[in-house]
Amino acid sequence: MIDFQTRLAAVCAARGRLCVGVDPHGATLAGWGLDDDLGGLERFSRGLVAALADQVAVFKPQSGFFEAYGPRGLDVLARVLGDIAAAGAVSILDVKRGDIGSTMAAYARAYLSDGAELAADAITVSPYLGFGSLTPAVELAAQTGRGVFVLARTSNPEGAQVQDALAGGISVAQSIVDQAATANTKLGAGVVHLVLGATHAELGVDLAGFDGWVLAPGIGAQGGRMSDLARLFGAAVERVLPSASREVAAAGPDQQALRQRTAELVVQGAGLS
Amino acid sequence: MIDFQTRLAAVCAARGRLCVGVDPHGATLAGWGLDDDLGGLERFSRGLVAALADQVAVFKPQSGFFEAYGPRGLDVLARVLGDIAAAGAVSILDVKRGDIGSTMAAYARAYLSDGAELAADAITVSPYLGFGSLTPAVELAAQTGRGVFVLARTSNPEGAQVQDALAGGISVAQSIVDQAATANTKLGAGVVHLVLGATHAELGVDLAGFDGWVLAPGIGAQGGRMSDLARLFGAAVERVLPSASREVAAAGPDQQALRQRTAELVVQGAGLS
Repeated sequence: MIDFQTRLAAVCAARGRLCVGVDPHGATLAGWGLDDDLGGLERFSRGLVAALADQVAVFKPQSGFFEAYGPRGLDVLARVLGDIAAAGAVSILDVKRGDIGSTMAAYARAYLSDGAELAADAITVSPYLGFGSLTPAVELAAQTGRGVFVLARTSNPEGAQVQDALAGGISVAQSIVDQAATANTKLGAGVVHLVLGATHAELGVDLAGFDGWVLAPGIGAQGGRMSDLARLFGAAVERVLPSASREVAAAGPDQQALRQRTAELVVQGAGLS
Repeated sequence: MIDFQTRLAAVCAARGRLCVGVDPHGATLAGWGLDDDLGGLERFSRGLVAALADQVAVFKPQSGFFEAYGPRGLDVLARVLGDIAAAGAVSILDVKRGDIGSTMAAYARAYLSDGAELAADAITVSPYLGFGSLTPAVELAAQTGRGVFVLARTSNPEGAQVQDALAGGISVAQSIVDQAATANTKLGAGVVHLVLGATHAELGVDLAGFDGWVLAPGIGAQGGRMSDLARLFGAAVERVLPSASREVAAAGPDQQALRQRTAELVVQGAGLS
């Protein structure tokens, strides 16, 4: 079994570190001349992946947009995940799940177990119930060679109320970072990774001791800039996956325009380190 | 349109305030002599609801256990939600979703919009990205006569690291409570409700000013006791929905035993106020 971090590093070395979000929301579908229905959902999502299949290291489907279409929307998501795997790219399924005990284990089974219809290479998870509540997902990811990206400091301003709150003089976001670092040390492998928004003036956390990867959403439409990443992340920028969604999709549906826009972002991302 | 809070109050007045969790995990299915597959999932979940259909005010299906079976598991969940509605009971779908902007709106569309296959009367939501990030769900719930239950202080010990952290001298959990109260005042209706675990020695938050309902998980298997609720919640205990899952399901699959165990818990709950 080749573990997640090894696969991620290899595909990023070959294709650059850009993560393309697959966010089929209504306005985006309309921009592609598609209806806001299951057919439009499938044509947009699989069309985007097909256009960029050999060009992008990481695709991040946003589960909410598929869930909005009910169980049949999740059938489409399963096919999108299959397309990403067939393209030799890595999938980070953005589900932001977070629960305790047997429920967290059930989410892990849904998205991180071999043979599950909706299995991805990694998922995002949300630690409102404490980092320790995520253990069933971390353990299953370690067993199956997958990864989890834990929300630490997100790209939206409202997050500060929770993420910058202090316990024992340490912010919630920093304690997530520290526990992620500890988990990777214990596991002896990079299973736990982080989500840190690229939209802030300051990163707000110290990444010393953390050897995993960082998903950095918010590039483009949310106001984050590639040119800020080196300053924000310092030496860790080489393990940052800048993530863009609308910024890429807006160039479609024309395949050449999508590839051109993506190539520009890949080059910008490569120039960071 | 009869709003969520009015429907909830009416069914609780008739049946008591017990919330029965529908948590089809493997061990529970085995206890009912069922296989850990789609057939077992459906027989357990719909069988539990059928046995208690006229007896219980609120059912809380736990989404993770359905997601674990992939898109076909969510077809079962849709049928369970239909059964709950047909029974005249209220459904609180425990999905703990939390995201920002158009993604949060997509989750709201999935679970809180009229006509959605997985629409419930209310859902649980998770505020790691800040209470404000939940606005699209709160707004859609207000429009469609549904509700949201926001995680404030959860039943598990690991939650304290995030939920008891302080910002401006106020804990994260208290700030969620305060913002829920403010949202209900602005909306002029009880759309926003809370999740507060029943397992703590102290409630840990002040509910003054909050007029919504409280879902209190953790009764039974997690160590919470009905007899503690009056002390924990004070005057607000009349708006508390004590929630039990394994505690009920373990009496099955025999229908009479399930109804007997449930009746005992309803009586215990009714004795609180």
